Amino acid sequence: MADQIDPGFADIVTAAARIAPYVRRTPVLADEVHFPGLAFKCENLQAVGAFKARGACNAVFALSEAVARRGVVTHSSGNHAAALARAASLRGVPAHIVMPKGAPSIKRQAVEEWGGRITICEPTLAAREAVAAELCAQTGGVLVHPYDDPEVIAGQGTALLELSSELTPPDVVLVPVGGGGLLAGTAIAARTCWPRVRVVGVEPAGADDAARSWATGVLQPQLSPVTVADGLRGALSARTLRLARQYVDDIVVVSEDSILAATRLLFDRLKVVVEPSGAVPLAAVLEGKVAGSSIAMILTGGNVDLDRLPWAK
Amino acid sequence: MADQIDPGFADIVTAAARIAPYVRRTPVLADEVHFPGLAFKCENLQAVGAFKARGACNAVFALSEAVARRGVVTHSSGNHAAALARAASLRGVPAHIVMPKGAPSIKRQAVEEWGGRITICEPTLAAREAVAAELCAQTGGVLVHPYDDPEVIAGQGTALLELSSELTPPDVVLVPVGGGGLLAGTAIAARTCWPRVRVVGVEPAGADDAARSWATGVLQPQLSPVTVADGLRGALSARTLRLARQYVDDIVVVSEDSILAATRLLFDRLKVVVEPSGAVPLAAVLEGKVAGSSIAMILTGGNVDLDRLPWAK
Repeated sequence: MADQIDPGFADIVTAAARIAPYVRRTPVLADEVHFPGLAFKCENLQAVGAFKARGACNAVFALSEAVARRGVVTHSSGNHAAALARAASLRGVPAHIVMPKGAPSIKRQAVEEWGGRITICEPTLAAREAVAAELCAQTGGVLVHPYDDPEVIAGQGTALLELSSELTPPDVVLVPVGGGGLLAGTAIAARTCWPRVRVVGVEPAGADDAARSWATGVLQPQLSPVTVADGLRGALSARTLRLARQYVDDIVVVSEDSILAATRLLFDRLKVVVEPSGAVPLAAVLEGKVAGSSIAMILTGGNVDLDRLPWAK
Repeated sequence: MADQIDPGFADIVTAAARIAPYVRRTPVLADEVHFPGLAFKCENLQAVGAFKARGACNAVFALSEAVARRGVVTHSSGNHAAALARAASLRGVPAHIVMPKGAPSIKRQAVEEWGGRITICEPTLAAREAVAAELCAQTGGVLVHPYDDPEVIAGQGTALLELSSELTPPDVVLVPVGGGGLLAGTAIAARTCWPRVRVVGVEPAGADDAARSWATGVLQPQLSPVTVADGLRGALSARTLRLARQYVDDIVVVSEDSILAATRLLFDRLKVVVEPSGAVPLAAVLEGKVAGSSIAMILTGGNVDLDRLPWAK
């Protein structure tokens, strides 16, 4: 009965109240000269530099005291790892983070900064899942998946809930798609807050499993993703595909060149630091793939290597 | 009777109402983990990427219709040039901008983007002033000085006015000092809005005329400024020195290393694009030169060459 545990609008409202003390209300920026008709919800300015703080806090603070005390576990080399370590630290419980060999030291530091306990494993999904399962068994801790988790999805939906109180309904809201947690949460929230707004996912063409899965209704694997948008290399789960099919209006794909151009444009004109994964919605606008005179988008994260900016040769 | 035309708090209130349709209400960011006790008023997210939009709009929209129609003139190679071109464009009047030979093409583009008419001159202050005076005589246009102008100073003061409605009074407010327009405007506003808050200017050690002038009470020349903070190479005027002596509590200086470290930290942790001139207040905090458990500062601008970031070797 998986449908029964799919999150709904009420779960997002509950999440918003639950996480309010632990996340930032991020600004909405606009620039009618350089980005006419566009509004940017700046989750790159969120704690840990990514919207992932929302879902991780909701998952951790939703646990009962007895369960939380045993700690939380995840496998991730990205923003969710730091977000979960932070959420666990704020609740005062341990976080065990499984990271693949060779994960960038900057990602390890972000986890260590929040007291996360790192276990290194072989860089395969099977190894990561096995080590995480073993840690759960050993510690009694709860696995908090980066996106295949109702509380995580509800938490991610709070960004749209905030945005809907800050902006009149646009024609379209654009959301980057990796595993589909933010897309699902945003679409669920928009269905109630902004019923006439089209919700469109945007994915790199080099990691287009979500577009293929959404179009066919059958979960497609993401075999060898090739994209600078490192946060979007994951694949939908059965749950996020089901929610996307139920709530999302379209998923479009964009080229690497557009992603780099959009990333640079956001630094240059909006004056914010954004990672390529966060710039894919603007890439869709640059490519003319989205119709609408008013378009809102979520700038999902700002964690980028400042010594080697994405567009540097 | 120069004192009679010094701007006061009422002029700042008037300026705020006058420029409201033309400038952004910029966000105030904070990060208690990485920047405990600090609040950042993000004028790098202002139109034209700098607080200069405020003073320029106030000066241009304060002109009578008959005078405005003849246009405005300035000599500047920095953010004021773009800000004045924009303000004139919004009012529908011409802007004549005198720029020195060799000014970076990015600065020229910012002026041209707003329809500013550029006149190139020799790169000396005497040449700039002479060419600007000639343009004023030819066109009947009004000179809008980047900082030695009561309406410009009143406009710059609106950033503090906004901030005071967004933040409880901190112990200290820090302001970068170039020509002293923002410092004067901020200090005048703070005297009324936040009477117990210390207002401290921060200047690069390599361009420390303001610190020397303020300490001695006698205008000191800025002969050969050497600093990465290109927006702060100017010198106080008699007016801005007088206002600083009247309203400002201290002026401190910071090293180039601290300025670069602060700039990078703002990209890395606050996730905003800031130019070195905007990072000097944080540099003062890093150097331990400012006492206070709560410190607000104005991030003055975000116009920086993205192909050659300031800290790049």
